[in-house]
Amino acid sequence: MITGVNHIGIAVKDLNNSISVFSKILGTDKYHTETVAEQKVNVASFNIGGVLIELTAPTSEDSPIAKFIEKKGEGIHHIGFESDNVKDELVRLKNDGLQLIDNEPRFGAHEMLIAFLHPKSTNSVLTEICQHK
Amino acid sequence: MITGVNHIGIAVKDLNNSISVFSKILGTDKYHTETVAEQKVNVASFNIGGVLIELTAPTSEDSPIAKFIEKKGEGIHHIGFESDNVKDELVRLKNDGLQLIDNEPRFGAHEMLIAFLHPKSTNSVLTEICQHK
Repeated sequence: MITGVNHIGIAVKDLNNSISVFSKILGTDKYHTETVAEQKVNVASFNIGGVLIELTAPTSEDSPIAKFIEKKGEGIHHIGFESDNVKDELVRLKNDGLQLIDNEPRFGAHEMLIAFLHPKSTNSVLTEICQHK
Repeated sequence: MITGVNHIGIAVKDLNNSISVFSKILGTDKYHTETVAEQKVNVASFNIGGVLIELTAPTSEDSPIAKFIEKKGEGIHHIGFESDNVKDELVRLKNDGLQLIDNEPRFGAHEMLIAFLHPKSTNSVLTEICQHK
């Protein structure tokens, strides 16, 4: 079951610059930083009423986020919906005709189990389903 | 003060088709529909754990959403952050060097007071500040 919006991922070029911008927008300088080596990104997360605003900057030119920025520029990258069981969710979504990027959950930021749906079947909205371990 | 994420706006071409897609993704067929005549859009909103997923389709070729889709295709359009006082927020943000689209709040969907920040000063994230009346 989808229980809420866990986070909104935003692709940015320069993490420190964007932390400064979003600190102003959100009116807070409280955020958490993390490196996700597998995705070759550094992430800064602001918790706004329970939803994380995840600024995500590439650490390498071959990071998926670097490729996204090269193609589309900076901006909103994806929505992460929280589920109580991402494995069951993937079975349900596949049966409902949605196209999956990840057929099995894998580990993402914040030590969560995550899986992405393909934007081809979601009105071009890159959609992540995630679950706390 | 920014208190939370009120909604995520998604630009879509065909509202009924997208309602079907997001009903599957979110695992619910409960949504609310509304026409915002001023913006020339029809909106279908799913409430997911307190955050609205707002599917927004143009009703006319000169709707801002039609122009967005023409330029960038379907996809995530903006984030709406909730504030307890959008008028004060605009003063604060302007003083902090953010560029505003709306210098004064105006009425949006769900009878809220809304104002947009310019994506030029927000890492290309179209950002709305909104407040319940």
